[in-house]
Amino acid sequence: MTPQQAAALLEQFRQGKISPEETLRAFQAAPVTETDLGFAVVDTQRELRKGFPEVIFGAGKTPAQVVAIADKLMKASGRVLVTRITPEHATAFRRKFPKAVYHQDARCLALQKQPLAKRPGVIAIVAAGTSDLPVAEEAAITAEFMGNTVQRIYDVGVAGLHRLLRRVKDLQAANVVVVVAGMEAALPSVVGGLIGRPLIGVPTSVGYGSHFGGLTALLGMLNSCASGLTVVNIDNGFGAAYAASQINSLAAETRT
Amino acid sequence: MTPQQAAALLEQFRQGKISPEETLRAFQAAPVTETDLGFAVVDTQRELRKGFPEVIFGAGKTPAQVVAIADKLMKASGRVLVTRITPEHATAFRRKFPKAVYHQDARCLALQKQPLAKRPGVIAIVAAGTSDLPVAEEAAITAEFMGNTVQRIYDVGVAGLHRLLRRVKDLQAANVVVVVAGMEAALPSVVGGLIGRPLIGVPTSVGYGSHFGGLTALLGMLNSCASGLTVVNIDNGFGAAYAASQINSLAAETRT
Amino acid sequence: MTPQQAAALLEQFRQGKISPEETLRAFQAAPVTETDLGFAVVDTQRELRKGFPEVIFGAGKTPAQVVAIADKLMKASGRVLVTRITPEHATAFRRKFPKAVYHQDARCLALQKQPLAKRPGVIAIVAAGTSDLPVAEEAAITAEFMGNTVQRIYDVGVAGLHRLLRRVKDLQAANVVVVVAGMEAALPSVVGGLIGRPLIGVPTSVGYGSHFGGLTALLGMLNSCASGLTVVNIDNGFGAAYAASQINSLAAETRT
Amino acid sequence: MTPQQAAALLEQFRQGKISPEETLRAFQAAPVTETDLGFAVVDTQRELRKGFPEVIFGAGKTPAQVVAIADKLMKASGRVLVTRITPEHATAFRRKFPKAVYHQDARCLALQKQPLAKRPGVIAIVAAGTSDLPVAEEAAITAEFMGNTVQRIYDVGVAGLHRLLRRVKDLQAANVVVVVAGMEAALPSVVGGLIGRPLIGVPTSVGYGSHFGGLTALLGMLNSCASGLTVVNIDNGFGAAYAASQINSLAAETRT
Amino acid sequence: MTPQQAAALLEQFRQGKISPEETLRAFQAAPVTETDLGFAVVDTQRELRKGFPEVIFGAGKTPAQVVAIADKLMKASGRVLVTRITPEHATAFRRKFPKAVYHQDARCLALQKQPLAKRPGVIAIVAAGTSDLPVAEEAAITAEFMGNTVQRIYDVGVAGLHRLLRRVKDLQAANVVVVVAGMEAALPSVVGGLIGRPLIGVPTSVGYGSHFGGLTALLGMLNSCASGLTVVNIDNGFGAAYAASQINSLAAETRT
Amino acid sequence: MTPQQAAALLEQFRQGKISPEETLRAFQAAPVTETDLGFAVVDTQRELRKGFPEVIFGAGKTPAQVVAIADKLMKASGRVLVTRITPEHATAFRRKFPKAVYHQDARCLALQKQPLAKRPGVIAIVAAGTSDLPVAEEAAITAEFMGNTVQRIYDVGVAGLHRLLRRVKDLQAANVVVVVAGMEAALPSVVGGLIGRPLIGVPTSVGYGSHFGGLTALLGMLNSCASGLTVVNIDNGFGAAYAASQINSLAAETRT
Amino acid sequence: MTPQQAAALLEQFRQGKISPEETLRAFQAAPVTETDLGFAVVDTQRELRKGFPEVIFGAGKTPAQVVAIADKLMKASGRVLVTRITPEHATAFRRKFPKAVYHQDARCLALQKQPLAKRPGVIAIVAAGTSDLPVAEEAAITAEFMGNTVQRIYDVGVAGLHRLLRRVKDLQAANVVVVVAGMEAALPSVVGGLIGRPLIGVPTSVGYGSHFGGLTALLGMLNSCASGLTVVNIDNGFGAAYAASQINSLAAETRT
Amino acid sequence: MTPQQAAALLEQFRQGKISPEETLRAFQAAPVTETDLGFAVVDTQRELRKGFPEVIFGAGKTPAQVVAIADKLMKASGRVLVTRITPEHATAFRRKFPKAVYHQDARCLALQKQPLAKRPGVIAIVAAGTSDLPVAEEAAITAEFMGNTVQRIYDVGVAGLHRLLRRVKDLQAANVVVVVAGMEAALPSVVGGLIGRPLIGVPTSVGYGSHFGGLTALLGMLNSCASGLTVVNIDNGFGAAYAASQINSLAAETRT
Repeated sequence: MTPQQAAALLEQFRQGKISPEETLRAFQAAPVTETDLGFAVVDTQRELRKGFPEVIFGAGKTPAQVVAIADKLMKASGRVLVTRITPEHATAFRRKFPKAVYHQDARCLALQKQPLAKRPGVIAIVAAGTSDLPVAEEAAITAEFMGNTVQRIYDVGVAGLHRLLRRVKDLQAANVVVVVAGMEAALPSVVGGLIGRPLIGVPTSVGYGSHFGGLTALLGMLNSCASGLTVVNIDNGFGAAYAASQINSLAAETRT
Repeated sequence: MTPQQAAALLEQFRQGKISPEETLRAFQAAPVTETDLGFAVVDTQRELRKGFPEVIFGAGKTPAQVVAIADKLMKASGRVLVTRITPEHATAFRRKFPKAVYHQDARCLALQKQPLAKRPGVIAIVAAGTSDLPVAEEAAITAEFMGNTVQRIYDVGVAGLHRLLRRVKDLQAANVVVVVAGMEAALPSVVGGLIGRPLIGVPTSVGYGSHFGGLTALLGMLNSCASGLTVVNIDNGFGAAYAASQINSLAAETRT
Repeated sequence: MTPQQAAALLEQFRQGKISPEETLRAFQAAPVTETDLGFAVVDTQRELRKGFPEVIFGAGKTPAQVVAIADKLMKASGRVLVTRITPEHATAFRRKFPKAVYHQDARCLALQKQPLAKRPGVIAIVAAGTSDLPVAEEAAITAEFMGNTVQRIYDVGVAGLHRLLRRVKDLQAANVVVVVAGMEAALPSVVGGLIGRPLIGVPTSVGYGSHFGGLTALLGMLNSCASGLTVVNIDNGFGAAYAASQINSLAAETRT
Repeated sequence: MTPQQAAALLEQFRQGKISPEETLRAFQAAPVTETDLGFAVVDTQRELRKGFPEVIFGAGKTPAQVVAIADKLMKASGRVLVTRITPEHATAFRRKFPKAVYHQDARCLALQKQPLAKRPGVIAIVAAGTSDLPVAEEAAITAEFMGNTVQRIYDVGVAGLHRLLRRVKDLQAANVVVVVAGMEAALPSVVGGLIGRPLIGVPTSVGYGSHFGGLTALLGMLNSCASGLTVVNIDNGFGAAYAASQINSLAAETRT
Repeated sequence: MTPQQAAALLEQFRQGKISPEETLRAFQAAPVTETDLGFAVVDTQRELRKGFPEVIFGAGKTPAQVVAIADKLMKASGRVLVTRITPEHATAFRRKFPKAVYHQDARCLALQKQPLAKRPGVIAIVAAGTSDLPVAEEAAITAEFMGNTVQRIYDVGVAGLHRLLRRVKDLQAANVVVVVAGMEAALPSVVGGLIGRPLIGVPTSVGYGSHFGGLTALLGMLNSCASGLTVVNIDNGFGAAYAASQINSLAAETRT
Repeated sequence: MTPQQAAALLEQFRQGKISPEETLRAFQAAPVTETDLGFAVVDTQRELRKGFPEVIFGAGKTPAQVVAIADKLMKASGRVLVTRITPEHATAFRRKFPKAVYHQDARCLALQKQPLAKRPGVIAIVAAGTSDLPVAEEAAITAEFMGNTVQRIYDVGVAGLHRLLRRVKDLQAANVVVVVAGMEAALPSVVGGLIGRPLIGVPTSVGYGSHFGGLTALLGMLNSCASGLTVVNIDNGFGAAYAASQINSLAAETRT
Repeated sequence: MTPQQAAALLEQFRQGKISPEETLRAFQAAPVTETDLGFAVVDTQRELRKGFPEVIFGAGKTPAQVVAIADKLMKASGRVLVTRITPEHATAFRRKFPKAVYHQDARCLALQKQPLAKRPGVIAIVAAGTSDLPVAEEAAITAEFMGNTVQRIYDVGVAGLHRLLRRVKDLQAANVVVVVAGMEAALPSVVGGLIGRPLIGVPTSVGYGSHFGGLTALLGMLNSCASGLTVVNIDNGFGAAYAASQINSLAAETRT
Repeated sequence: MTPQQAAALLEQFRQGKISPEETLRAFQAAPVTETDLGFAVVDTQRELRKGFPEVIFGAGKTPAQVVAIADKLMKASGRVLVTRITPEHATAFRRKFPKAVYHQDARCLALQKQPLAKRPGVIAIVAAGTSDLPVAEEAAITAEFMGNTVQRIYDVGVAGLHRLLRRVKDLQAANVVVVVAGMEAALPSVVGGLIGRPLIGVPTSVGYGSHFGGLTALLGMLNSCASGLTVVNIDNGFGAAYAASQINSLAAETRT
């Protein structure tokens, strides 16, 4: 319930159109326009609160569940993004929504009646190695879906520093930089020393030996001395892109 | 060495004013204007690269080392911030720099010839409990020192949800929100559901039992479902404020 | 051996009907009425000691073993519950016991000559997300099987706080609340701030990245500031329901 | 804001006594009667929501802070309990509140205008060894302060099983049993096999070698096969007693 | 090279039958009678040093490798035990050695020209639950193969204490007791309080939730207060039986 | 209550000398001859069950508590051993018991009316380095106090293998070998390859870096390939000696 | 860009052959001769910087990706090594490069127009057990490919010390020793006591129970008292061989 | 016992000068010329085996113990190095050996009748930050004491990459590079990309938050993609220098 809705409700009550009990229940029950699917309560008002509709996390949901939730969201907001999907999800999804785009590398499904207008400002997505690409692509697709222009900077690990250095201009031109790295977790530290913009690190679970499913990369990023670096969970390309989009969107809004 | 400096150097070389060897060395040696103190190489050019001068991390440095580094930085940029200090640092520091301000709660020393002009936009610093205040204050002092307006929202833990809910307007008015929490690590999740702006979590080491020096809070924040939440290291109030300031500064810059 | 049985035994001995040696052996050997199946010693007296017959933990047992143990328990107490089963268990089980009910979501088999009468008082089972449902259902089925009325409150994660708040009345009406959550481990903290009744948290192994198979959720719940929250092992829906039933049963017993 | 208060507010509005804006603000701002001390927001309405006033966690607060919060709570509810205090807290506290009782073993301060009437039902507090006593006493004092009768059963570790077995009657007579153990973390498993009532385990940080500050005891309790056992954080005697009191109180309430 | 062999070698040298260089090499090279298979150096002299021939750890070796090593050992000592095998190992092994006995539960293969005479004294193997049986059987088969009489005491977990207590006589009659437990890791603590003989704990990897592949059971056993309990690695039934056999053998040897 | 006592009790009952209720209570209450000190229940019957009186673990007990428990034990069994004591414990103890021997290196107090007769057989205590001596001495003093002859073999780390090899005869002459090692945790593996007798490893907390308070040494020993090695908790010299004494005692008993 | 190339560039600029802008870009962009494949940026200049061309880490790359990268590297340097491959990689690779050698045990593919001349000096590769061979072979193949003579010393675990001792001469003859061990992680400590040359430990993930995927072996090696031992990541045979080759190459270079 | 000594011994025996028993004992007992101090067995033959006399690890030894061991070593080899000392060690040491040099930063004591001649080749010691200096100095002092020329490169963290890049020539001129870093654990990765020589990483325990006493830095280095990087234990500056000296010494020896 937005403040506007609350004011309207109170006005109705003041005019005697609804009883105190009804009003009270309305306040307690708001925002109830979401649809209860039994297994899920679709939050169709998230766009109001967060500026972007709910995104479906596909892992752990059946294809049928994903399709049902997507259906509700499409009706409410005209766009839906599904992350962490399997090919089975994709098949079921496109049977129902033939216009959906399946980003196989990114493990995402995207569907929208009309793409969002691109806001000004670039989000750079940096990936250390080839095996970090699925996470980087999840970030890139998410950021683009949310109305941002994305600059991909891939395979620029620290072991060959020159690969990174020749992309410094691209890095410095971005409003926000997302760095995705598993085995080369030193990369955000180095990038952080080169730029003055917000920087978000995404550790990946790619590695071996004492990599511990990405924990080593995560800890390395958290302990980096690069000022201004913040971090999201292991493999959470979506979360990093979401945060980057919030930042880019803040910059765009205040621009007038 | 900025691109401008590099271009000037090449021009000098082209005109025969400096030898190829000198030019080459210049490229290799740049940016060498920092002062080598033996125990430390002061990075007086960081302001150029990062938009803000080097901040001194006091822990693990002797008072004399801190004073010496601060002296170099004051000469180069006219402002210096020292974090993680003990009272001994403060005493030695103010003997040398009587105008320095000692923020005891925040364990910080601040010194500047002239404060930075406040940029538009507010950074909200939220603290869950009384014992999280030192970290929250480190964040607040840092953000203010870097030219931001700060809104403090303290002692609003989840166990008494109404304390937080009555501050929703303050939360929603901020450009960036920093949430500092140790025992109530659920706080950023809840805040994240209420706002649409960038949100940075700072786990603190305050707690007991299976809190593991803040690791539990850190992991809780990383696994939060609140979209757009990014995280810094345990107790790293400085880092969160630095990132928040970068975001706020980006918003201010693009505003015209 | 209950006190009654012990007294009877001693009386027999006093009347010279059994020898001292026999009596001594009886004390040492009691309660021996369980049946030794070789691979398992069925505890048919647990109902006397604990108020409820032994429940079979299916994982790690062959279908044949489960059926054999169930057979003994059915004969002794007329009801049997099997948790953590696979479809193979279910098939074998229903071949032997066609009246058994297979709760697929909950991974449980339930069989009883006659259901227990429902005791007064409600147990609320709260689940944060869709992927927490199997554990929540294990709890719900267990609680119902043990003679309790269950109120399911599903998909009410913290990221959309209003979903939870509109169910506050249901929460406050319950005698005991069980909260099942993996990725949204902040949920019990928030629920704990809203109710005054016993609250049991069940962390689930659902999540990714630094979730560590539920350890992060477990630690988050243990460190919650919500007074009165107790916790069971990861995914242990059965254990939470068992404890909730004990509490609800205590309340019912003392009610007269 | 209770439902009653909300209804009254709406009635005032309906009669035109307050404007829509005022009404709206009232809903948003409720429950604001707590006192903001700057460093702490005292939650004087917790008694309404949770059935018991806020308890002060002393660790990490200065003696002056503890006294100031206690002062507010005394005025609101006439009783205050402070846990995890040092002798310095106790001295400062009793200077202000000479009638306060300092439970040195339990590291608690208790102050009440008039003790709560004892509700029927006993809470048994079991401690494995001598070194577990401070945590057991914190639990015992808390439970008593909250209006419960407590039965202490101390030094009954598993290594000498007979010590425990001779107290079986006391265990079976209790409504709830709290088991406190560090090095003998097997104790709750054994107790759980002997009783049919709710059982709460409190691992303690007492131990050495691979005890890891109580983590081993915590994990041992979580993995216990004793049905109905729930667990609180390491050393959290207060939390266990709080939960036990909620259970005992539920039993008492429903008794009529 | 035993002392006898060394003395003989020196005597040969003193008589001039071998050169100093040969003698020196002999000392350096001894005991070289093992056969180098390329992928393995079979230690056919272990029986001399340790009192029992090398046992083959099957996991990580191909069936062909196991057969080749077994062939060498059979020739040298007439008996071979293979642990941690798969059915594939068993098939290949029995094709070569049709008289080999395949203990499927224990995942062992045993082959001997003639069984060892049973030494006096009993080794009791205690297993907490049905799922601990494979490890318990590995221990039992190993102990029997090494010439010991074994008493199996299975499914006697702590949650139903009477199951264990009725076997106290068997426990007290054994020279050594091996306790195998995963979910009921409290069992060795309780057994340790009942007997005065050497006791060896084997944690198993069976469990779920925060069991961590047996680590919780391992730590629980290491921290047990039961004096005289020693522990082997998770699932290491073989190691426990080997140690138990050494103890039992020591007792038998000194008996005359 | 031993079987003899139980038989006597039953006979009394049969003769009508005691009522059924009294008999029943007697069974439930046995073995109650221990003295309840409030903070501790002294187990004066442990000697009967375990073959050796209770040993006092000093850490976490006040000097007064230690003295009080010791007093009870001296009266019951004429000998008492206290481990993990501080100098304060020693001073208080010797004020009460001037004949007590304070083993400062071993952090133990020993007091006995008359030493136990030495049983045949030697226990070898091996220590890797100088810093492992306190734990090794705790083991040595314990083993001697329990009536064993001890052979100390100190500072024989693996880095200088010859130091160990020249003591091989001493190692092979022992009935049991206890190996104490922190930084050189490879030592038990090497010793295990040289002897055929029971071997007990004691990891110590001495080390630095990734030693983790002895966890690394503990894990190293648990994973050793040396057959027959069992392990006790970190720094648990007492436990290793207790187990070694049980083994040595078993060997002595069966010798006739 | 080597210093020579940089000097040449500057000379061109000085002679007016290229503009300042071009020169500046050249400095920023160097070394850009690598080929950008989209998913990978091949570092064809690594041979200049590191003395050896880039090696392809096969895991996580598709066969097609591996082949494409190898193609670029073959053209640039005439030799390519691929590690951590599956049979699928091998099949695809040899379809394109029929002369490639597939080392199945080592999980490597090697291809070179002409093998490197062997430099003087031997690298010894020591493996503790049969199951450590894949990692040892990865090290051996890598070292040979890089132009070194390799001495394999396999199956020489500590439990049978004589197996190792008879190879002491081979160990002492090597310039560098690589020790590969999982379950017998004590091996490097023992080897380190026998030789005076650089020693590199490679923990392997082979083991069970509390081996934790090689972490126990890794920690054991890091805490070894053997002076001069350095360690690489778990299973990183390639890395150890690379470091060993650098050392051997340094020795060879300085030899004249 | 060197091969020469062994041959001489055998010759004596062949000539009948010593008995077989004496010869045998000699072989078993060798190398026994070390002095047994009771608490320590000084290994005066290590110089023969390892090329450098034993170094005393001061931590955990009393000043008197350190002095006594040093006395033996001085007599045997004329030089002694003590690491990890406290000022108390230094005072006691210099009372006995006034010529000893106390390196306070490095926490080392060095004493030698005559310094070793410097071998050709430089070892570079790189330290990331001011707080890493004690460990770096321990490495530097050790390397110098062992006869190496050391190049110190301090405070060159990754966050200001230019500080490192201007020292590239010094890095590339060294035979071996040791990199010491705690908070900036990315440093070895970056250095590894710039040089072709052996590189040894030393993680330090300096840091905060999720640094875990250096574990994060250790794991970061182990997972680095920089080929040729090997790692020592946390804070083990001595070990890194020892390994570096072995490498440098190998290069020097082969140089002729």
